[in-house]
Amino acid sequence: MKNISIAIHGGAGTIRKDSLTKTKEQEYKQILQLALDAGYQLLEQGATSLDAVEMSVSKLEDSHLFNAGKGSVFTANGTHEMDASIMDGSTLEAGAISLVTGVKNPVQLSRLVMEKSDHLFLSGEGAQDFARSVNCEFRDEDYFYDEFRHQQWLALKGSDTFQLDHSLSKEDKFGTVGAVALDKFGNIAAATSTGGMTNKMYGRVGDSSIIGSGTYANNLTCAVSCTGSGEYFIRGVVAYDVSCLIEYKKMSLAEACTEVIQYRLKKIGGDGGLIALDNNGNIVLEFNTQGMYRGRRSVDGLNEVIIYQ
Amino acid sequence: MKNISIAIHGGAGTIRKDSLTKTKEQEYKQILQLALDAGYQLLEQGATSLDAVEMSVSKLEDSHLFNAGKGSVFTANGTHEMDASIMDGSTLEAGAISLVTGVKNPVQLSRLVMEKSDHLFLSGEGAQDFARSVNCEFRDEDYFYDEFRHQQWLALKGSDTFQLDHSLSKEDKFGTVGAVALDKFGNIAAATSTGGMTNKMYGRVGDSSIIGSGTYANNLTCAVSCTGSGEYFIRGVVAYDVSCLIEYKKMSLAEACTEVIQYRLKKIGGDGGLIALDNNGNIVLEFNTQGMYRGRRSVDGLNEVIIYQ
Repeated sequence: MKNISIAIHGGAGTIRKDSLTKTKEQEYKQILQLALDAGYQLLEQGATSLDAVEMSVSKLEDSHLFNAGKGSVFTANGTHEMDASIMDGSTLEAGAISLVTGVKNPVQLSRLVMEKSDHLFLSGEGAQDFARSVNCEFRDEDYFYDEFRHQQWLALKGSDTFQLDHSLSKEDKFGTVGAVALDKFGNIAAATSTGGMTNKMYGRVGDSSIIGSGTYANNLTCAVSCTGSGEYFIRGVVAYDVSCLIEYKKMSLAEACTEVIQYRLKKIGGDGGLIALDNNGNIVLEFNTQGMYRGRRSVDGLNEVIIYQ
Repeated sequence: MKNISIAIHGGAGTIRKDSLTKTKEQEYKQILQLALDAGYQLLEQGATSLDAVEMSVSKLEDSHLFNAGKGSVFTANGTHEMDASIMDGSTLEAGAISLVTGVKNPVQLSRLVMEKSDHLFLSGEGAQDFARSVNCEFRDEDYFYDEFRHQQWLALKGSDTFQLDHSLSKEDKFGTVGAVALDKFGNIAAATSTGGMTNKMYGRVGDSSIIGSGTYANNLTCAVSCTGSGEYFIRGVVAYDVSCLIEYKKMSLAEACTEVIQYRLKKIGGDGGLIALDNNGNIVLEFNTQGMYRGRRSVDGLNEVIIYQ
């Protein structure tokens, strides 16, 4: 049996100890632990890494604390538009969706696109119709309404300013969520989900639904899920870049993640982070911001959730 | 002054000499030459590689022969949905759009997203609204109507079958268009544009709007524009893969293109091709199908348009 292991993130940004109350901090840690354990328990029961990342990301989507699923931020015209993607490192199959509204768990929809459609990436109304055709769970506007998110939006509404959900708000509520996992069969997988940026132009697609940028998995190299300034992650093709440094330049997982996040991404002006693992059970949580909501758990007893640097 | 050069493609597929009449072949060659020359003349006049690729792709979009712009195929519900992207190798800036309808030149819209929006990738209604806000040229349904495309669609309508526009039809009309160029400043750029797949599920996004998969440009390595089975090009992160093989594995441009198209893409079941150049003026036109509409022209006198192997 391989070293089953899993890592998750709930977004990276200017998270400082003085900006979170003790209670809030506990709340975050509790949900992170819950999401981590839910995925890990599946792995223990012999489920696949795909099942585990889908489960962990779903749990984060179900919380109002993170900018994905239930906690998604408001776009410029007051709607919620969600993006997600998933990739199977054993087959290089993948699924992605963008600009969906009302879907309870976008990550589950991305997996359904992978498994039940002839396409890889569906967007907007077409993605919604597909979701209905495969009986995806929908929720009404109330479910996605959050007072804090609404205030965040009202403060920016009508202006040209948008925020990455981790840069300007007083009480920073951080973004994108993701997971990477290794199962007992030695297969790895990655998944990412986001509600985008507060007051973003509607129709904006970020890196979370882009295979190669926000999500990538390949048994030969690594599984990666990213979070941060999406446009820069697309330009840097960040997730696949980590994989290429391992495959072509023979870097270790840790070296590759450092190179990409601390040097290559920074060089073009991008901030954020990623979680990555390989099929030897190595886990890396790398970011160039002040903090990243994150956690990791593996068969050798490692089990932690962390927020700050 | 650098070796100004440009290459274009009009799609790859099962193009055989016996499937095109002499007249049709001349028609294709004429438009390819016109598009090639239009971009090249700009380069001669001292324009940037970005201007040149935008010009050449626009010319191909303006023809009914290729599956992009005017010649776009019909989706499953009888509409036209177009994708495009562009990337500047000197800044790594990029722009992308997907699922737009009625825009005369999607490649021009992708450049406007890069230069005039705060985002990199806009899709659907949001992209349309942005297009209107920057006074993009629109055309009505009649402009995009083509009898052959309509027949192609009617033959598949109501079925679950879709076609890549280069696999099933009797008179093959080939797909996606693209261009790569090197200007006198030593900067390279790439652009791609497509009308998708006949009878595709609406909302399907292919590789043509994905930076890293369908389009990539970086002065340090190469500029690439792809065409083929989009889902496989996304899974293979094809355009960036060529760049990584050059940067990390020190392959030549030709070696990298062969490795990616003849081995890595084929291994996962993908078919298609790409055009690529570097800032030394090397040009590669690589495909693993029976033919690819293509052309290249450079300052040293090279000037050709080719269809078959």
